[in-house]
Amino acid sequence: MYTLYSMRRSGNCYKVRLAFAQLGVAYNLIEIDILKGETRTPDFLTKNPSGHVPLLEVTPGRYLPESNAILAYIATDTPLAPADRIDRYDALQWMFFEQNSLQPNLGAAWFWLTLVKGGRELQMHALEDWMEKGYQALGVMEKHLAKNRFFAADRYTIADIALYAYAHVAHECDYELDNFPAIRDWLARVAAQPRHVSMDWHPVTEESAG
Amino acid sequence: MYTLYSMRRSGNCYKVRLAFAQLGVAYNLIEIDILKGETRTPDFLTKNPSGHVPLLEVTPGRYLPESNAILAYIATDTPLAPADRIDRYDALQWMFFEQNSLQPNLGAAWFWLTLVKGGRELQMHALEDWMEKGYQALGVMEKHLAKNRFFAADRYTIADIALYAYAHVAHECDYELDNFPAIRDWLARVAAQPRHVSMDWHPVTEESAG
Repeated sequence: MYTLYSMRRSGNCYKVRLAFAQLGVAYNLIEIDILKGETRTPDFLTKNPSGHVPLLEVTPGRYLPESNAILAYIATDTPLAPADRIDRYDALQWMFFEQNSLQPNLGAAWFWLTLVKGGRELQMHALEDWMEKGYQALGVMEKHLAKNRFFAADRYTIADIALYAYAHVAHECDYELDNFPAIRDWLARVAAQPRHVSMDWHPVTEESAG
Repeated sequence: MYTLYSMRRSGNCYKVRLAFAQLGVAYNLIEIDILKGETRTPDFLTKNPSGHVPLLEVTPGRYLPESNAILAYIATDTPLAPADRIDRYDALQWMFFEQNSLQPNLGAAWFWLTLVKGGRELQMHALEDWMEKGYQALGVMEKHLAKNRFFAADRYTIADIALYAYAHVAHECDYELDNFPAIRDWLARVAAQPRHVSMDWHPVTEESAG
């Protein structure tokens, strides 16, 4: 059985928990609190030298980091991955877009404005840049969604899961979605998918039941 | 035949040109100058709404953006991609790491310090952050390379190409690699691979021969 190291309020971790829920995959969950330095312990850094969650123990002692690589791995040959080759890489390119254009801005704003006490004051110098670049990324998504129901393969895939993770909390960290009607409709479509779970939902497992 | 929209001094574009050279794949090259706004024209934005190069025309009218998605696409079932499933996703996770931890810092420093006239003065406020986070990413790479010759599958793959693109010009944009001996050895190993080409190397094609 897989073991997932995850933080409850992390969008990147939510991606994997959402995909597992929709795929009906059972796994052990180990809750990690970044704010308590639990990704910076010598033990955790042995598992993942970059010190990030999520982290998936694929087989005993073999670890896969990076939320979108984990998503692609667990979705292989499932309905969450496009079947057609070019569609599969189209999903992948949106997942790279998410990591270099959306997450660095919306993810940073989410972390510092909602999870870290006093984070807004600490990051005041960076906020304007996150807003500007975050809106640019949302603009690219809006343009795509004005003509497409989903990001790849004309159906719900891991590309949607990757982009949903931070887009669905944008309004909680200063971004206004009033001018992004296609994104708002898409958010609703994603939330209406079978077996959808919220960011706060966690499976009860040995580790997390305590 | 593929058509690649590429900028000569872009590390992200270099990845694709290097892989094509090593795979012996012929393609049309269209040189794009970001600094002249050529990725912001209505025509280019129709092809890639995010306005980035590289961009690969996979089949007539069908475009794949994002350097690392292009790399993964063109390397499918070639020696540049790991054969084993978990190794393949291990390569992929390093490619996500490259996009969220290395490229945003070394890539930004490369662009503003070497390509944009007066860029250092314009970006002075951001430079300290790029240096700090860039060194963190190089630290993660050094730790891995102290124990491994390459990033995934114990051999040269697209993960190495992705990370090499900006790591090999780190010394040209303020990063000192004196304390990263394993990275320096790996850079030499990558440069010694068969059919390696430099960032400045361009194939002569109809479009680029002019």
